[in-house]
Amino acid sequence: MASKTLRIVPLGGLGEIGKNMMTVEYGDNILVIDTGIMFPENDMLGIDYIIPDFNYLLQKRDKVRGIIVTHGHEDHTGAIRHVIEEISAPIYATRLTRGLLEAKLTRGGMLKDIKLNTVGAGEQVRVGPFEIEFFHVCHSIPDGVGLAITTPAGLIVHSGDYKFDHTPVDGWPTDFAKLGELGGRGVLALMADSTNADEPGWTPSETVIDRAFDDVFRQAEGRILIGTFASLISRMAQAAHAAFNHGRSMAFVGTSMVENARIARSLGYLDVPDELIVPLDEALRMPPSKVILMCTGTQGEPSSILGRLSTGTNRQFDLIRGDTVVLSSHPIPGNEEMVHRTINRLLQRGADVVYDAIAPVHVSGHARQEEMKLLLRLIQPKYFVPIHGELRHLKQHASLAREIGIPADQVAVVENGTVIEFSEGMMHIGERVPGGYVFVDGSGVGDIGPTVMREREALARDGFVVVHLHLDGESGKLREEPEIVSKGFVFVRDAEQLFEDARTKIDHLAASANGAHLEELVENELSKYFYAETRRRPMVFVFASRHN
Amino acid sequence: MASKTLRIVPLGGLGEIGKNMMTVEYGDNILVIDTGIMFPENDMLGIDYIIPDFNYLLQKRDKVRGIIVTHGHEDHTGAIRHVIEEISAPIYATRLTRGLLEAKLTRGGMLKDIKLNTVGAGEQVRVGPFEIEFFHVCHSIPDGVGLAITTPAGLIVHSGDYKFDHTPVDGWPTDFAKLGELGGRGVLALMADSTNADEPGWTPSETVIDRAFDDVFRQAEGRILIGTFASLISRMAQAAHAAFNHGRSMAFVGTSMVENARIARSLGYLDVPDELIVPLDEALRMPPSKVILMCTGTQGEPSSILGRLSTGTNRQFDLIRGDTVVLSSHPIPGNEEMVHRTINRLLQRGADVVYDAIAPVHVSGHARQEEMKLLLRLIQPKYFVPIHGELRHLKQHASLAREIGIPADQVAVVENGTVIEFSEGMMHIGERVPGGYVFVDGSGVGDIGPTVMREREALARDGFVVVHLHLDGESGKLREEPEIVSKGFVFVRDAEQLFEDARTKIDHLAASANGAHLEELVENELSKYFYAETRRRPMVFVFASRHN
Repeated sequence: MASKTLRIVPLGGLGEIGKNMMTVEYGDNILVIDTGIMFPENDMLGIDYIIPDFNYLLQKRDKVRGIIVTHGHEDHTGAIRHVIEEISAPIYATRLTRGLLEAKLTRGGMLKDIKLNTVGAGEQVRVGPFEIEFFHVCHSIPDGVGLAITTPAGLIVHSGDYKFDHTPVDGWPTDFAKLGELGGRGVLALMADSTNADEPGWTPSETVIDRAFDDVFRQAEGRILIGTFASLISRMAQAAHAAFNHGRSMAFVGTSMVENARIARSLGYLDVPDELIVPLDEALRMPPSKVILMCTGTQGEPSSILGRLSTGTNRQFDLIRGDTVVLSSHPIPGNEEMVHRTINRLLQRGADVVYDAIAPVHVSGHARQEEMKLLLRLIQPKYFVPIHGELRHLKQHASLAREIGIPADQVAVVENGTVIEFSEGMMHIGERVPGGYVFVDGSGVGDIGPTVMREREALARDGFVVVHLHLDGESGKLREEPEIVSKGFVFVRDAEQLFEDARTKIDHLAASANGAHLEELVENELSKYFYAETRRRPMVFVFASRHN
Repeated sequence: MASKTLRIVPLGGLGEIGKNMMTVEYGDNILVIDTGIMFPENDMLGIDYIIPDFNYLLQKRDKVRGIIVTHGHEDHTGAIRHVIEEISAPIYATRLTRGLLEAKLTRGGMLKDIKLNTVGAGEQVRVGPFEIEFFHVCHSIPDGVGLAITTPAGLIVHSGDYKFDHTPVDGWPTDFAKLGELGGRGVLALMADSTNADEPGWTPSETVIDRAFDDVFRQAEGRILIGTFASLISRMAQAAHAAFNHGRSMAFVGTSMVENARIARSLGYLDVPDELIVPLDEALRMPPSKVILMCTGTQGEPSSILGRLSTGTNRQFDLIRGDTVVLSSHPIPGNEEMVHRTINRLLQRGADVVYDAIAPVHVSGHARQEEMKLLLRLIQPKYFVPIHGELRHLKQHASLAREIGIPADQVAVVENGTVIEFSEGMMHIGERVPGGYVFVDGSGVGDIGPTVMREREALARDGFVVVHLHLDGESGKLREEPEIVSKGFVFVRDAEQLFEDARTKIDHLAASANGAHLEELVENELSKYFYAETRRRPMVFVFASRHN
């Protein structure tokens, strides 16, 4: 029975469901879709990034027949290194996605043992019992694909990250014909991108940005700095187009921007005349009205080009009065504060700043409600599984599906780790596999758990105090003044009296105690004392050395 | 010359300009407008709240003739305690604002020496050389006022936080007649709320919420929990109205909600029949379809009612299946992530969640672009000073003013601390007074500066390690195993080998060093070692005790 069951498992924790990684399983065959990372939230202190916990998969790693990466964004590619360290299976990706994966694996020195297969939209690949058709979808990076997977249990369609843009920058719209054809064939289940499920209407075409750029370029008298994601190849093309029209040259600034432009140009995904592009140092010597600079830093990251320009700490060049900065992006939830702060600082330094709240210089890469309904109509699936969104987005997507007539019991809103089973044409919500997210911090993968996070939270809030006691081994009395070190608690130079009084307190404790449990006593009493004086709760540690 | 000059000074740092506190000065007379706090941003670790630095004012505290508080929100009232500790001057506020200030000062035990004056919209007060007329403005709390200040240098209008709602819940619209009359009188300068300057159109009336509530109440079969700000008295009234219409009783949950409802009811700002209100414990015993609970926690605060319900840690009651939670609010920038996480968790626990992205259950308390233009048209000021917004909002508000014909050189976009001077009918941008923001952390006001913040950031990112060396005083060699304690760095139980190797390293260092600078040497070498092993940079502290 179980061997005739198709299992679909989105992996990860309480985040976007099925976004970073999911599996499609039939008998002894597993297909992995995407190997991405999640970015840490504001209260995940010190964490570099987060990967789905795929321990569940390691128990059956020999059954993994292939890994498909649907497009080149970090939340779909970023964990590739971690996955292939544990699981050896061929990777399938389109040309640009493959190029970006290669660059990633080359940097990690891991390219040699990997079997990377290039697939193209419109092509078909057999992996174990799965016949996989790749179809083109528009998104905010070129060469994204959705998947039609013919399994022994039926046809499954996975949208990838998509939108329906009738006039995309690269002239390559989402493959409506294929979607219609799949719908006609009869689809057992559709899994589709829910990111914008609470946005009514239809995401505007990328071409609206051309008009907004044209406005900016007509008005700007000085340099134009365009900030966007380094992966937003189509935006580079649009900026280049505007630069060409307005007689400006273009320079790429920042490692990832330069690297991605290089890959995209060499693979033919960024068609820009050579003479338009100049190196940064040359651009900086040109008249301001003749250049545009493509930069990173639209999320307010302090170490990015725009971040450093906003604080006057960029090495190669500074903002100059008359610069126009265009933030061709939208804040990722959680980054709003940093983005707004960066905008305020850029304004403070005399730049003009154009961002999506005041001009249409950015559009989303994801479908909105009307597009979602269209996809559902085109595919006409028996079952619908909203993916790629938080639980709140999935619920909204599910209610759209019900609106257009898919019965509620044929829609599965599940969390990461929940197994969705299909057998004999029926869907069944199965067990919950162990999972969650794994924090990556420095070179440590998964060693930071709740204990360390709680310690970091406490330290971030109130700092710590360390006390070193020198005791007489026989009498248990203090031989010297206690040494006290604190960080993150109070400004030490202004708190001399506080620590002086703490030392007096320790003197009394040492004099009255028998010396045996003095460390514990001092820890408790100082904690209370510091709270009474400051209403803060620093961690307090006491060391004692006993000698005669 | 200077004595005939009117000076206006917004106080604070890089935040909203003039939001929390500003001064109007003429000769030896100072009027303070608002005494509010700013909420800490995500990277202001451990900070409770932030107040404007008003040291500038302390040098001339004897000249302060009065303090006006325009409405009862924390960002206008929250610093009252800090201000009146330093400056003794009569306070002027409307009845509800006064009631909320009194509650605040009573809690601080500070009510006795304060002269609190009640003023009403439509009334007039003379403070030193200033003739102040209070006029009613709609906002998301009742009894807000704007100010018309007749000064020897001319008439100044301050909008307060405002919007133009033609159908406000309390039936009391913004005083158009007064605004028109002021415009006719001739206004030297308008200072106006810029919060929504990047929002096109007109903020919808509060009454749209009545219809949204009605929809929710018709569909909900179980309990209804309405989350909103404790200060949103009009929202309480709307919830009460919906409860009445649908035969439900209403309970207030949480200290601030209960307290504010009490004040508002006793002062007549919340007109709800007694029999509609039930205590929480009674509400919890009633059939779910018969109650609504008004709660706090719409910003995702973990310690709020909704925060605790979302994690299953609320003491008095839990969510039950069939509950409908309405978030009648909008995330304050920076809180989006926490709010979304709370929504996802409430959904996970089986509640239905209605929030502003999916139904109009909230509207802003601030004017949008068309309202801003209307205010400018009504007042027809000679000079315009956008306030109450970040620099980016002020710039947008300024460009609206230019659109309707106010010349660019008659619009002053300034930062906090910049003095705006008016003399002989002309505006002049003056000096910059020292200022900024002051962090309040526990009982400490201003003792946390950049040094402590940097320490907290470092601790939050990578934690710390403390090493205690027991050395032989003569040979400088180790007498015992070094003690090592770490927090926030690695999970100690999994890192035994790391610390074992660190001890070995210390052994070698102690054996080869002459013992004099061993602490420094161990600190440096361990820092390098931990970075090499973990790519993390914990703070490392070494203590040594030397004895024979």
